[in-house]
Amino acid sequence: MKKAVVLLSGGLDSSTTLFLAKDQGYKCLCLIFDYGQRHKKEIKSAIKIAKSAKCDFRLIKINLPWGGSSLLDRKLKVPQYRNRKTIPSTYVPGRNLIFLSFALSFAEAQKARTIFIGANQIDYSGYPDCRGEFYQALKKVIEKGTKTGVQGKPAKILTPLIDKNKSEIIRLGRKLGVPYELTWSCYSGAKTPCGKCDSCRLRAKGFKEARTRDPIYG
Amino acid sequence: MKKAVVLLSGGLDSSTTLFLAKDQGYKCLCLIFDYGQRHKKEIKSAIKIAKSAKCDFRLIKINLPWGGSSLLDRKLKVPQYRNRKTIPSTYVPGRNLIFLSFALSFAEAQKARTIFIGANQIDYSGYPDCRGEFYQALKKVIEKGTKTGVQGKPAKILTPLIDKNKSEIIRLGRKLGVPYELTWSCYSGAKTPCGKCDSCRLRAKGFKEARTRDPIYG
Repeated sequence: MKKAVVLLSGGLDSSTTLFLAKDQGYKCLCLIFDYGQRHKKEIKSAIKIAKSAKCDFRLIKINLPWGGSSLLDRKLKVPQYRNRKTIPSTYVPGRNLIFLSFALSFAEAQKARTIFIGANQIDYSGYPDCRGEFYQALKKVIEKGTKTGVQGKPAKILTPLIDKNKSEIIRLGRKLGVPYELTWSCYSGAKTPCGKCDSCRLRAKGFKEARTRDPIYG
Repeated sequence: MKKAVVLLSGGLDSSTTLFLAKDQGYKCLCLIFDYGQRHKKEIKSAIKIAKSAKCDFRLIKINLPWGGSSLLDRKLKVPQYRNRKTIPSTYVPGRNLIFLSFALSFAEAQKARTIFIGANQIDYSGYPDCRGEFYQALKKVIEKGTKTGVQGKPAKILTPLIDKNKSEIIRLGRKLGVPYELTWSCYSGAKTPCGKCDSCRLRAKGFKEARTRDPIYG
């Protein structure tokens, strides 16, 4: 059975990606990060999702003691609205490259040739490391800088959601049976989603456009 | 004063790179990794080197629980000789990409525009992530996937030792006053270097060709 490493944050996109990879016949090894984000709620969600998909997972704890993001530094406020032309303060420097470099290491050690990430450049955060161009550029790095790459069998990073809008992602996930009630998107870690942050707004817009209820509200 | 993040392993190459960056007028922020390597001796060396250079440092602990390297997995033996045409078992999957992704995060958060790494493709380990092609490929990733990159001010990764042989590196380090007696190259963590592993052999060859004594022997 072909193996894949799947980056899993506990949000809507990565959860849909996991179920898509499973549907495509991959044995999925999930990689979940505790990187000092504001709350552990999304980590707990990621673990629940991995378990509900009956997939193995590894929880990796990393420390980014230099901050540089309102998601890491509790002295900064997470903005409720954002200017779509700028990169928001919730951007975490280097985050997806850090996650992917661990995924590449995991994949090489486990002889997996595929890495899935739920990056999306349509209804998205505005982070540069969610855009297709970044993943295109990574191909050459993998070819030149990894053992399997120089042996002509580079790991591939797949971004199946990159050009889908949020409602398309939700419709796909509904077909695949993603338990969206277990996912967590809100930047806050309260009992229920705040409904106001950028992440909550994108999620609500997606469910509205997909004409389906968000099961997170029970 | 211009700031630089310097990856510091405690070995000969990264220590020389730190003293070179200082000599070029950078305020250096050292990044040292505890990644589960066989012994802590090189970490202690790195800390001594940073202190002797009067530079700030951060020690980052990471966990690569999937092994895949004789430097991580104590059930595997570190080879004493190696076939120069193959990648040795001491290769750690994804290591330099992991280190550099943390360095990029640190650099963005600290508004440093330069990252130094002592990678070398001449008298080297045979690891693909020590070769110039890998660093060339990373440029585009930084341009496309980081905030400063898309703003037209990408961090630069400098590899000043990439095409130098070991004796050239040692001669340069001697001029710069690198305290080589504090560095550690051996794959084993014994009291004195084993003198037999690939890393010890490369070091010995370098000092011999530079016609100078290795001060690690007192």
